[in-house]
Amino acid sequence: MINEFYKEMLKGKSVIRTLSERAVKRGQEIGYGNVFDFSLGNPSVPVPGEFTDILKRLTENPDSMYIHGYSQSQGIPEVRKALADQLNRRFGMEYTGEHLFMTTGAAGAIAHALRAVTVKGDSVITFAPFFPEYHPYIDNAGRHLKVVPPDTVNFQIDFDAFEEALTEDVAAVLINSPNNPSGTVYSTETVRTLADIMDKAQKKYGHSIFLLSDEPYREIIFKGTDSPYVTKYYDNSISCYSYSKSLSIPGERIGYIAVNPACECADIISVMCGQISRGLGHNCPPALFQRAVAEAGEMTSDLSVYETNMNLLYDALTDLGLEIVKPGGTFYMMPKAPVPDSVEFCMKAFEEQDLVLVPTDSFGCPGYFRIAYCVDTEKAERSLEAFKRLLKG
Amino acid sequence: MINEFYKEMLKGKSVIRTLSERAVKRGQEIGYGNVFDFSLGNPSVPVPGEFTDILKRLTENPDSMYIHGYSQSQGIPEVRKALADQLNRRFGMEYTGEHLFMTTGAAGAIAHALRAVTVKGDSVITFAPFFPEYHPYIDNAGRHLKVVPPDTVNFQIDFDAFEEALTEDVAAVLINSPNNPSGTVYSTETVRTLADIMDKAQKKYGHSIFLLSDEPYREIIFKGTDSPYVTKYYDNSISCYSYSKSLSIPGERIGYIAVNPACECADIISVMCGQISRGLGHNCPPALFQRAVAEAGEMTSDLSVYETNMNLLYDALTDLGLEIVKPGGTFYMMPKAPVPDSVEFCMKAFEEQDLVLVPTDSFGCPGYFRIAYCVDTEKAERSLEAFKRLLKG
Repeated sequence: MINEFYKEMLKGKSVIRTLSERAVKRGQEIGYGNVFDFSLGNPSVPVPGEFTDILKRLTENPDSMYIHGYSQSQGIPEVRKALADQLNRRFGMEYTGEHLFMTTGAAGAIAHALRAVTVKGDSVITFAPFFPEYHPYIDNAGRHLKVVPPDTVNFQIDFDAFEEALTEDVAAVLINSPNNPSGTVYSTETVRTLADIMDKAQKKYGHSIFLLSDEPYREIIFKGTDSPYVTKYYDNSISCYSYSKSLSIPGERIGYIAVNPACECADIISVMCGQISRGLGHNCPPALFQRAVAEAGEMTSDLSVYETNMNLLYDALTDLGLEIVKPGGTFYMMPKAPVPDSVEFCMKAFEEQDLVLVPTDSFGCPGYFRIAYCVDTEKAERSLEAFKRLLKG
Repeated sequence: MINEFYKEMLKGKSVIRTLSERAVKRGQEIGYGNVFDFSLGNPSVPVPGEFTDILKRLTENPDSMYIHGYSQSQGIPEVRKALADQLNRRFGMEYTGEHLFMTTGAAGAIAHALRAVTVKGDSVITFAPFFPEYHPYIDNAGRHLKVVPPDTVNFQIDFDAFEEALTEDVAAVLINSPNNPSGTVYSTETVRTLADIMDKAQKKYGHSIFLLSDEPYREIIFKGTDSPYVTKYYDNSISCYSYSKSLSIPGERIGYIAVNPACECADIISVMCGQISRGLGHNCPPALFQRAVAEAGEMTSDLSVYETNMNLLYDALTDLGLEIVKPGGTFYMMPKAPVPDSVEFCMKAFEEQDLVLVPTDSFGCPGYFRIAYCVDTEKAERSLEAFKRLLKG
């Protein structure tokens, strides 16, 4: 009895992936260096040499079961303790190891946190523009994703629309700041207002509403950007982190959940996630990488290229007349398409100029497109002529 | 809205884990060397030095995104191709890379395969004695686990009981050979008969019934044991493999699904699993270990200690009067308790002799106990006196 639901899903192929495959194919024709592929959000900077040293040193440990043995399903206790201490020093929190749950990246973090604090049939709110994978994350868990339309002025939050969406069936709100695809970082004021509205709704409906904060881009913040640590502003909050972008190791699937010590059931959510992991087949994230990120502390790859690329593209594209909300972080920006149909615009960009841009219709924000500028600066520079021909033809 | 289902699960703590925690505590009192801890199925032999060399070499690759970047959610294409080729050479199969799906160990494999070939409400049959984690794997996915009572003569299959259990609601049969906890390996005759009965039931009910073969102990086979490759005997079969035991890397979560090319929808099950992984938060298993196991080929740890320990314990314990079906593989054996209540027997063993044995009530087989002899041979030898005092004292 083949599961027709998943079979059916195969028809709905990701727009990003389709475009990226076309880009690779075009690269085989004209050389990939001549395709301005801004489609994929894969880190473009190498893993820090010091991190590679940590991996090598751990691998050389003669006690191979210490390094490669099962961890508890919640994660290796000393790793969780080390990460709690790091977060406490940095953000003034009071996490203990018991508030941490090690995960296979942010996707694993959301999969577990979502199941711990909602039940089937609950609604989960997110804000457009949003990462399209939220749909399978939430739909396949039997929860319902409610998308609040974008605030297109500055990609913060349209609070009137949020209050309208925040009905009794909502058990969680999922935010992503710094944001994929807009690059926007929610300001302290935005987070405070969000928390205030959610607090009132909790009282009104008499049940908890959890704030799940998806933070894989937390370390990619540009100069002068106000970037509050979301968890500090709302008790029932869970931070979902991944090292994919900060250490350029997206394939190694390592991240964590940090449960606000002030939240409901704070002492057992990590243990509940351990139970959830048995049903999802996770058990524990890779042990070698658990130990490695604990040792790495706040080490990151050299992330400065992303800000360099952002400034280069932002200045040039606004000069060419595009409307862009200036990103505060990530390696994305989301200009408004100069014609109403952004899909048509992106197709034209690809076919005429070998520029691979992603229309953000599937991000809940039609009429815009995403530029993933996690590329070599040299390529970003060369792309400017192609943008010029496209826009000024 | 905290999920009460998972909260409730916290009360049902695993017997194995409780015992193993007690063993560790007792070890702090009298020295862990003096506790004969046969509770946990963690490999006791080191990772092969050659495997460590592979890991170090991969880590040193200057193209860090090649090593640590995202893989496709189905797994890295060249890794899947390499594993398909290895399986074909060894078992005379005709897998292509498209029949492989890389997973986070056997748990991840079962989580995905189960969801691909069954739907909510379906029943899944397994045979006692069985790995107790099958309950959360299957229950939490909304499927129903039906346990066929054990054939206690030789721990093969009680086919009369199987035919009775194989009603129309059954969509899959989950087997584990070599078996945890009995150490039994299903014979070719057993697998043939199983396949024959399932084939007839498929025709009778007019729907497919998949055979999920959980094979983490495949490489631990003792001399003279008939150990058929299950997939060869039944078209609608999926092999679920893990490198946890063969390479002693249970914490690194790496394994795969191999879909029988002859099965229904063979060409899309791996792609379906990719879709399923989006909802479960897996995305892809650790990329470094994907490449490492592809390079490792059929390399294993030195697994001979398990057979040495098995023979030592089997001979000594049968001499002491215990009834034991001689294991054909794994690092487990499952003697019959000399008193009707095996929980009471195991408690006595722990309290009087510091022998940590696991009653197999939760494995669907009360009246027996499991010995996980993945320990140093020296310790297994020293334990014999304690067994003697327990049984003859």
